[in-house]
Amino acid sequence: MYWGRAKEFLEERGFNVWDYVEVSTERQVFRGVIMPRTQLGDDQHLVIKLDNGYNIGVRISRIKEMKLIKREKKKRLKKEEKKYGKTIHETGGGYVSIVGTGGTIASKIDYETGAVKPSFKVSDILKRIPELREISEIKAEEIMNIPSEDMEPRNWVKIGEKVIQEIEGGAEGVVIAHGTDTMSYTSAALSFMIQDLNDPVVLVGSQRSSDRPSSDSDLNLMSSVRVAKTDLAEVAVVMHGSISDDFCLIHRGTRVRKMHTSRRDAFKTINDSPIGIVTEKGEVKFLSNYKKRSDSRGETWLDKEMEERVSLFKVHPGVSPEFLDFLVDKQRGIVIEGTGMGHVPKNLLDPLKRALDSGIAVVMTSQCIHGRVNMNVYSRGRELLKMGVIPGEDMIPEVAMVKLMYVLGKTEDLREVRKLMLTNMRGEIGKRSPINA
Amino acid sequence: MYWGRAKEFLEERGFNVWDYVEVSTERQVFRGVIMPRTQLGDDQHLVIKLDNGYNIGVRISRIKEMKLIKREKKKRLKKEEKKYGKTIHETGGGYVSIVGTGGTIASKIDYETGAVKPSFKVSDILKRIPELREISEIKAEEIMNIPSEDMEPRNWVKIGEKVIQEIEGGAEGVVIAHGTDTMSYTSAALSFMIQDLNDPVVLVGSQRSSDRPSSDSDLNLMSSVRVAKTDLAEVAVVMHGSISDDFCLIHRGTRVRKMHTSRRDAFKTINDSPIGIVTEKGEVKFLSNYKKRSDSRGETWLDKEMEERVSLFKVHPGVSPEFLDFLVDKQRGIVIEGTGMGHVPKNLLDPLKRALDSGIAVVMTSQCIHGRVNMNVYSRGRELLKMGVIPGEDMIPEVAMVKLMYVLGKTEDLREVRKLMLTNMRGEIGKRSPINA
Repeated sequence: MYWGRAKEFLEERGFNVWDYVEVSTERQVFRGVIMPRTQLGDDQHLVIKLDNGYNIGVRISRIKEMKLIKREKKKRLKKEEKKYGKTIHETGGGYVSIVGTGGTIASKIDYETGAVKPSFKVSDILKRIPELREISEIKAEEIMNIPSEDMEPRNWVKIGEKVIQEIEGGAEGVVIAHGTDTMSYTSAALSFMIQDLNDPVVLVGSQRSSDRPSSDSDLNLMSSVRVAKTDLAEVAVVMHGSISDDFCLIHRGTRVRKMHTSRRDAFKTINDSPIGIVTEKGEVKFLSNYKKRSDSRGETWLDKEMEERVSLFKVHPGVSPEFLDFLVDKQRGIVIEGTGMGHVPKNLLDPLKRALDSGIAVVMTSQCIHGRVNMNVYSRGRELLKMGVIPGEDMIPEVAMVKLMYVLGKTEDLREVRKLMLTNMRGEIGKRSPINA
Repeated sequence: MYWGRAKEFLEERGFNVWDYVEVSTERQVFRGVIMPRTQLGDDQHLVIKLDNGYNIGVRISRIKEMKLIKREKKKRLKKEEKKYGKTIHETGGGYVSIVGTGGTIASKIDYETGAVKPSFKVSDILKRIPELREISEIKAEEIMNIPSEDMEPRNWVKIGEKVIQEIEGGAEGVVIAHGTDTMSYTSAALSFMIQDLNDPVVLVGSQRSSDRPSSDSDLNLMSSVRVAKTDLAEVAVVMHGSISDDFCLIHRGTRVRKMHTSRRDAFKTINDSPIGIVTEKGEVKFLSNYKKRSDSRGETWLDKEMEERVSLFKVHPGVSPEFLDFLVDKQRGIVIEGTGMGHVPKNLLDPLKRALDSGIAVVMTSQCIHGRVNMNVYSRGRELLKMGVIPGEDMIPEVAMVKLMYVLGKTEDLREVRKLMLTNMRGEIGKRSPINA
């Protein structure tokens, strides 16, 4: 049931599926049963069922030593094969790793106070949605439990590390259960931080807690697991596509924004089309181009240096230049949420000049949210460009902010920062389209 | 051609239409011809054609003295009556006052630099769009010429004063030509500042300068003049309703937001339906409830005290509490653009508490833009409510900011501020709807 590299590895060393083995990698030693896989997985990992019942994937290139502890008897084998084989057939093989971080999807109403409170247990999910088992083998783990308004860049790093661990462990795809408030900030951060991603990483949340009849959490979760089993090799957000409980949309992690406080279809792809849809029947259909799993990709890793001294500064009539001045003294990067095509009131020109003269990266986006900044049309824009303000193209302001954190984590050279900010790294910048389109 | 109060006034004093008179009000003395009016205007004003050719309206209650200078000969009268009568018939009577403030609608491309530059002349509008004359008599005047990113609260006051002057002067309605960048801030400000409005006040702009073939300025202007002749007694924004040059939408001044950097249909009504539509044929159709002109209303006036020490503060992961602390030291009001239903990261709780303890008004809105904040659902929201944060209901964040400037200009009493912020003054707050709607 293994093929390619994994099959060779096992055959060369004389191991069979169902052997109980001890595996040593650079990091750790563990014991477990070599589990079967299907062609839907890759050929770079062995899946080992540990004594505690969890499956983990082990990247073959990381295995330093592997010892046979016990060979399973034929009779037991047949039984296991039958049972497991059935599951494989039902699920399409492999397992999806669900990583819990908190949020409404992990909450219940506290009927004493009426408020929604975190109450996530991974095992609850599987109990609550037995259908998940029909879609895939699931490995689930809670790595934090915080409302998403409290997510900070260091949490993004922690989630990213877990994603890498799960991918290295052999998961077919990773689902991250996350609060909706800042889910799109996290999806953008993971999009930039995860390098050479070759598997689906799907963020999912819910707008109504799971114990409410109108909850969107079950459909969202099932759909996210379905997407995690496709050939998508990007970070995506999967949420309701309508206010009915019928289909979900797959949004690119750098193009999505929460556009409503309470509706189930609050998440919208901005300045682009959604990547795809998960239909009422559970079929995943891709609607636009996306990055696919490929055999030739290198190892997935996390580039986790994020510069936190970055602010999002929204301008408005009557905005005082002293607040911008204050930021200039503290921050290394400022993303302006300007008006229209990328403008600021004239009394902000001095603090902006001071920012640029002090080597602070300033990126212009628009509070219109939709559309592209174009600083060549009006004189204020041209003035700002001349000063050195970097046009944020059609990036969502919040995404530009996350990207600037990422870029400033790599380089201090402002020319390099400009180049990277203007480079479409993860689909966050679209091609220029005719102005009437 | 006068009726009601105005007819009585003229008859009592023995004046006729077309008489050349000298009028003294509390403020000034001027000479001109008493012009005819139609029933579409009100009965509170005389319209006087001054020697310089402009028509002005004079509120009868303000007239201290009126002297006959010259009675027009019968022959001339007939001619004037014929000409003017025709115009009245064609236009539906009265005149619309167009007030220029700057922006793209008042701009042309500078073909040397390629940039769009202000080049507004009121007379240009009438030359460029002769059809306007068929819609209405027009009085046009430029009171400032600034790109709208430079609009400040003091400009709102200046525009508001001009609106009052034009209404008092007898204009059927006032059209304000304005840059699109901050047009919705100005429309919100005028909505709150103008009291007992009994006429249409219509803001209009354009996304493409008038010398570009794709310009939206002509249709927008014509549509705004049409709306200025209806029985609408609100501040509204009239802009393209689609990317084709076919129809315009009428947005309530407190419910509209620029939602695209460049599209002609960038302006959208948020959390409500547009008030109406101006069809391709030029018909104005109202689609939802609106405030109508009424005979029983008092005099329109401007409540122009605006507290400028108000900030819009947008939260995001990694936002530093010291920036909020800085605002707490400087401002009298802070509108938070929170996440989701109205949340902030926990590290902002201390500065917010300090703000509330120092008597600063803090209002919560959502960066989702659409939907309503609801701070009873999650514990963070309940914590904020308990501290004294005022929920901004379903107000657009920018509108809540303008409203807070207005409210803090009236009162320093935080209980009063809360009451006023929670009161629907100008359609800025909608009724609660079922959560699934």
